[in-house]
Amino acid sequence: MSLIAVGTMAFDAIETPFGKTDRIVGGSATYVAYASSYFVQPVHQVSIVGNDFPAEEMNELRSRGVQLEGVEVVPDKKSFFWSGKYHLDMNSRDTLVTDLNVLADFNPRIPDSYQGAAFLMLGNLDPVIQKQVIGQLNPRPKLIVMDTMNFWMDIKMPQLLETLRLTDVLLVNDSEARQLSGEFSIVKAARKILTMGPKYLIIKKGEHGALLFHEKQVFFAPALPLEEVFDPTGAGDTFAGGFIGYLAKTNDISFNNMKTAIIVGSAMASFCVEKFGPERLKDVSKGEIDGRIQEFVDLVSFDIELS
Amino acid sequence: MSLIAVGTMAFDAIETPFGKTDRIVGGSATYVAYASSYFVQPVHQVSIVGNDFPAEEMNELRSRGVQLEGVEVVPDKKSFFWSGKYHLDMNSRDTLVTDLNVLADFNPRIPDSYQGAAFLMLGNLDPVIQKQVIGQLNPRPKLIVMDTMNFWMDIKMPQLLETLRLTDVLLVNDSEARQLSGEFSIVKAARKILTMGPKYLIIKKGEHGALLFHEKQVFFAPALPLEEVFDPTGAGDTFAGGFIGYLAKTNDISFNNMKTAIIVGSAMASFCVEKFGPERLKDVSKGEIDGRIQEFVDLVSFDIELS
Repeated sequence: MSLIAVGTMAFDAIETPFGKTDRIVGGSATYVAYASSYFVQPVHQVSIVGNDFPAEEMNELRSRGVQLEGVEVVPDKKSFFWSGKYHLDMNSRDTLVTDLNVLADFNPRIPDSYQGAAFLMLGNLDPVIQKQVIGQLNPRPKLIVMDTMNFWMDIKMPQLLETLRLTDVLLVNDSEARQLSGEFSIVKAARKILTMGPKYLIIKKGEHGALLFHEKQVFFAPALPLEEVFDPTGAGDTFAGGFIGYLAKTNDISFNNMKTAIIVGSAMASFCVEKFGPERLKDVSKGEIDGRIQEFVDLVSFDIELS
Repeated sequence: MSLIAVGTMAFDAIETPFGKTDRIVGGSATYVAYASSYFVQPVHQVSIVGNDFPAEEMNELRSRGVQLEGVEVVPDKKSFFWSGKYHLDMNSRDTLVTDLNVLADFNPRIPDSYQGAAFLMLGNLDPVIQKQVIGQLNPRPKLIVMDTMNFWMDIKMPQLLETLRLTDVLLVNDSEARQLSGEFSIVKAARKILTMGPKYLIIKKGEHGALLFHEKQVFFAPALPLEEVFDPTGAGDTFAGGFIGYLAKTNDISFNNMKTAIIVGSAMASFCVEKFGPERLKDVSKGEIDGRIQEFVDLVSFDIELS
């Protein structure tokens, strides 16, 4: 089944304890597209870039079945730019520069050729824009997955809540789940968020894995203990891309299949962090993905006999 | 197989965001004894108490097959006392009072009747005392499990390293693993610690679960997402008690059985945090333990077909 991915295509400059980059390609929709294209094609991309976004990156995406008709190119402006520096624990970072550039005018129009897609990934963006996208889709996709962040909770909570009501799956981290719900206990937070629209909630905990909540059910997916996390930028988007890509490939949105999709997303994210930017996502082989998934299986498998 | 448990039997006064206690019974060996006695009896207890330790607590322990011959009772002194206050996240706490009392003179003597025990649990104590205990055991137990904490790393690192060389399994949390190894990456820290004596390393991550390392193998055990953690005091000791109790019951110290033992320990710890002190550990039923273990099985189980 086909997939629409909405989000930023941008430049990042990243500093981690292991090194530092100049301006490299980034953006939530870029990561989602690379990760999901391993499982489903075409990926219908919706984004906005300036005149500086590299043609070779566009070609690379096209070669992976990513449709770019929904990517607006603004000839006299620059692409969105973010610069940040990670702390030693890699779980926290400081934003050094945010230049909105073309993103200030982002007013996505969904091409007719995208209509009928069954899966929609709303990357982290202004919730008003996320809602505009949903409103343009007819028929409504079978599954709408929304990513967001604390920034929007701080400045646009009412709008975020409105968009949330229209979605099926929400992706947030633990502190965002607490902020959104006003509950400190993650279990209570999840229960409350599941009354706010989404029927499924994924709480990402970085190196501590992820939790999937649905009705009274909960699933815990570990993160692989990695020797080194080189650059966490895009890991969450890559997770989202692997997750929705696998769901789209299998066209099965049951709780059981979502558990598997989370493992697939986690495996893809574990590749992403091995190099700066989306580089590693461009040369992963099918065998490597299967091997990484097997590591997850081994990591949590145990036999127990209740006697 | 029989088990020796060495550690404190003490009083705690605890304040959490949910409430506050006066002096209640606590101590690492108390928690280990309650948790392990569900799986193995007798538990040969080694500790020291003052004239104030309640006779009814001693009787309660005896009724569960906990041998107290190795518990020295000092008639003219008081038991060890600790008082602390947990922060909202329950992962960190401030120590308000530490009264060593009898613990200042703890010089454990292992009763002859304890000799020949196959399993030894060294609760968190001065590493010099832990080493004294090992030296008194002849034959050496089949498995020596050592708990410790950052406090001893700060003030007695050389002695701690000496004791560590004599053990088989080390239990620490993630920040202690980093401090002990000087490595920030948990995987690198584990690799280094496994050259320092123990063949198995368990890194406890509280609400984020636990990791077991052995040679090139790693196992991840989740923690149950609990609605409320009422009082985390003793959770680590209860985990240790369930872990070594299950190993002693099954008399199997393979990596595979240790994985199961970690799930059992995690299940016991999940009961401990439901009430203040060891209270909840006194009335857990076999059915409840099995039910809790099944929750762990369900929490992490997923089906995946590599295609």
